[in-house]
Amino acid sequence: MGRKLGKGMYFLDQNDMPTHWYNIMADMPGDMPYVLHPGTGKPATVDDAAGLFPRECAKQELNRTDRWIEIPEELQAIYRTWRPTVLHRAYRLEKALDTPAKIFYKYEGTNQAGSHKPNTAIAQAYYAKKQGLKGLSTETGAGQWGSALCLAGAFFGLEIKVFMVRISYDQKPYRRIAMETWGGNCVPSLSSETKTGRAMLEKWPDCPGSLGLAISEAIEYIVAHPDYKYSIGSVLNHVLLHQTIIGEECRKQMEMADAYPDIIVGNVGGGSNFAGQFFPWIRDKISGKKPDMRIICCEPQSCPSMTKGFYAYDFGDMAGMTPLIKMYTLGHGFIPPPIHAGGLRYHGMAPTICHLHKMGLVEAVAVPQTAAFAAGIQFARTEGIISGPEPCHNIRVAIDEALKCKEEGKSKTILIAHSGHGHFDLAAYEKYLTGQLEDYEYPEEEVRKAQLELPRVPTA
Amino acid sequence: MGRKLGKGMYFLDQNDMPTHWYNIMADMPGDMPYVLHPGTGKPATVDDAAGLFPRECAKQELNRTDRWIEIPEELQAIYRTWRPTVLHRAYRLEKALDTPAKIFYKYEGTNQAGSHKPNTAIAQAYYAKKQGLKGLSTETGAGQWGSALCLAGAFFGLEIKVFMVRISYDQKPYRRIAMETWGGNCVPSLSSETKTGRAMLEKWPDCPGSLGLAISEAIEYIVAHPDYKYSIGSVLNHVLLHQTIIGEECRKQMEMADAYPDIIVGNVGGGSNFAGQFFPWIRDKISGKKPDMRIICCEPQSCPSMTKGFYAYDFGDMAGMTPLIKMYTLGHGFIPPPIHAGGLRYHGMAPTICHLHKMGLVEAVAVPQTAAFAAGIQFARTEGIISGPEPCHNIRVAIDEALKCKEEGKSKTILIAHSGHGHFDLAAYEKYLTGQLEDYEYPEEEVRKAQLELPRVPTA
Repeated sequence: MGRKLGKGMYFLDQNDMPTHWYNIMADMPGDMPYVLHPGTGKPATVDDAAGLFPRECAKQELNRTDRWIEIPEELQAIYRTWRPTVLHRAYRLEKALDTPAKIFYKYEGTNQAGSHKPNTAIAQAYYAKKQGLKGLSTETGAGQWGSALCLAGAFFGLEIKVFMVRISYDQKPYRRIAMETWGGNCVPSLSSETKTGRAMLEKWPDCPGSLGLAISEAIEYIVAHPDYKYSIGSVLNHVLLHQTIIGEECRKQMEMADAYPDIIVGNVGGGSNFAGQFFPWIRDKISGKKPDMRIICCEPQSCPSMTKGFYAYDFGDMAGMTPLIKMYTLGHGFIPPPIHAGGLRYHGMAPTICHLHKMGLVEAVAVPQTAAFAAGIQFARTEGIISGPEPCHNIRVAIDEALKCKEEGKSKTILIAHSGHGHFDLAAYEKYLTGQLEDYEYPEEEVRKAQLELPRVPTA
Repeated sequence: MGRKLGKGMYFLDQNDMPTHWYNIMADMPGDMPYVLHPGTGKPATVDDAAGLFPRECAKQELNRTDRWIEIPEELQAIYRTWRPTVLHRAYRLEKALDTPAKIFYKYEGTNQAGSHKPNTAIAQAYYAKKQGLKGLSTETGAGQWGSALCLAGAFFGLEIKVFMVRISYDQKPYRRIAMETWGGNCVPSLSSETKTGRAMLEKWPDCPGSLGLAISEAIEYIVAHPDYKYSIGSVLNHVLLHQTIIGEECRKQMEMADAYPDIIVGNVGGGSNFAGQFFPWIRDKISGKKPDMRIICCEPQSCPSMTKGFYAYDFGDMAGMTPLIKMYTLGHGFIPPPIHAGGLRYHGMAPTICHLHKMGLVEAVAVPQTAAFAAGIQFARTEGIISGPEPCHNIRVAIDEALKCKEEGKSKTILIAHSGHGHFDLAAYEKYLTGQLEDYEYPEEEVRKAQLELPRVPTA
């Protein structure tokens, strides 16, 4: 029986799964700024970082020399419960757009927690366990990261303590129940378990919480529990490093499809999903092998750190407990407007991505949320998948680029870094479908105000 | 770099995806009873069935001769947006159980709607579209089937009308929003759109609804809308036929894994997921090639149609609008006890499965719901996946069989037919985790009572 159908999905055999993460720092052009100790203004050391994170993560964070970092065999075995993930050809979307463009998407939504987050969660949990730690603490907003870390805790027999922003804790019980199903411990933040929490609750018993406050609680928790370390889900080098398995797999799959991307689009909040996809490709742009490849960071119009933020040293958290990071930032006091439904709420951006943008190697575009959800609906009605609000942003940009191809009669290859499903985000879809979503452009004057509140960088 | 890891996942290349469904009726041993017209007592004809269903489905329903039925190319193209699904080796569960058994699971949860249901939904929608119909109507309980059909409607540009049991409509808005995201129209049943609905609402405005009533509304809807047909998600031959793609794929994947199942376990409500997996295997048992293979149907203790029901002609729905089907039944008036959280709520069972059970070719076992959820938690904490309540039942039985292997020192190969994820069922997990779930054994006297209310079969 002859088969004429083009492939809709490219499976990579587990024997061909990459065995190493790609450390872009070894190939980074220009002078990438260091992360600074906020007290001394000196570059943070491994010991500084190891005060917060598992030591192996701290080492990876500052590693600027080793291009390839081996994925331990025990970790590979866990990856093999869901990886390699599939590369899809979006034939039905192409047809609906009537475009000559070829659209591919690498989809991270099929694992147990439903997003790219477990790629780093299991690595951090593994190193924590190997170090003899009892547990990890972290914060979570809507719960995607917290649930990935609880999954990882189950895999390695590690306690996980999650401080979940109260308003999400109350409104989105499913993510919390998932964390508990995996054996994690999730409390609303503010909680009565930390000084920060207790003090704030006394002043303001009904405080809805914020990511910044939850981070403070998670960090305070490890001070009181010395057999715990803190774990983070995006922004930092070691987190992005672990995500490069996505792009390394994808390179092999695009070869199977006999294709090479002209344009790569990805949503950016802290940047870890998109970096995981594009770092392995940007090698070819840095080396001059594919100089015209476009790499487009897609962010929400209401949280436009790359398109409207300023490039400066800032804290990673609202409370100012982290080292100083050079990045595009809206100011560490940033709070996303209440109207914002689209995820991607971080005030800053991974410093590696910011540096690459400063070097002119990656672009950034801000997407209004109604346009993002419209694209998400079109994607759901063609490809079937109900995407998280985050990837809806880059699906929007991919569709727009594909329509440009149609206008120009060009057959470009577009690759979407699709970070996960929207099964727990259907309330946002309902808002869109019933006309309750509005757009919101983050005001310039807010950016200027925040600029005045930047931390002073001590002279080293 | 040599790789020593065993494979955790077996991917089947799309070039090797089965091109035909397997029609077990061609190989059925014994005298399988016919479906009867309730007015005449005569075997239902294609014309009878085509009054309800798309004509091609009606033909497939009554086809007892063609062993292989080709999957149209346009349908294969849709399957290729998520198929072949993955066969997993459950290494981590095996290790936790310390069993010599090899445990595999074929997982249907990675498609856009998250269960096996789209395998038949897209086929029914395709045939409806080809016939020139404008839409399909159906009923849904918790929403798994309704959302699969709405997905299929999006794929083929077909209107979908879903009558959703009101109590679920109110309590589980996410499934409804998913249906709307795919463009379907979902109304609570009872609705004001049918005579049945209006009459009932007048008597009982707060009626929570039932599956039986929703079926009546869905069927009434097609009478008023002649360009619509009715669609069903389980029980009938053509539905099970479409699901056999699962088992046909799995045979190839088990061969890749150099394995053959000694025991196959699957959850049964109407039976379509499990039949889709085991029909392709039972060929080897019928033919005598693998006579000792055990095939175990796992049903809830509180809805025990196979283990406690009687084998008789009964209606498929509560209102008595369907043909008469010979099956194990708890009586068409059956209402699952309110305590029941585990899905699998149908009073009867696919007549093919019942016949095979009567022939001694398949076994059945009833599982208490707390035992099922305990197994689901263990599965989530080892393999990571949060399973729907339905597959928790067969995971329970698989674990028990694997523990028996340990006792007896035997290394059997166990294959789990895993029907989908539990992302929309976390409320049931929370009930279990907080000790609010109790077991319920369906009482014998209820079965005897129902037996007295069986429909009279007219003499043909």
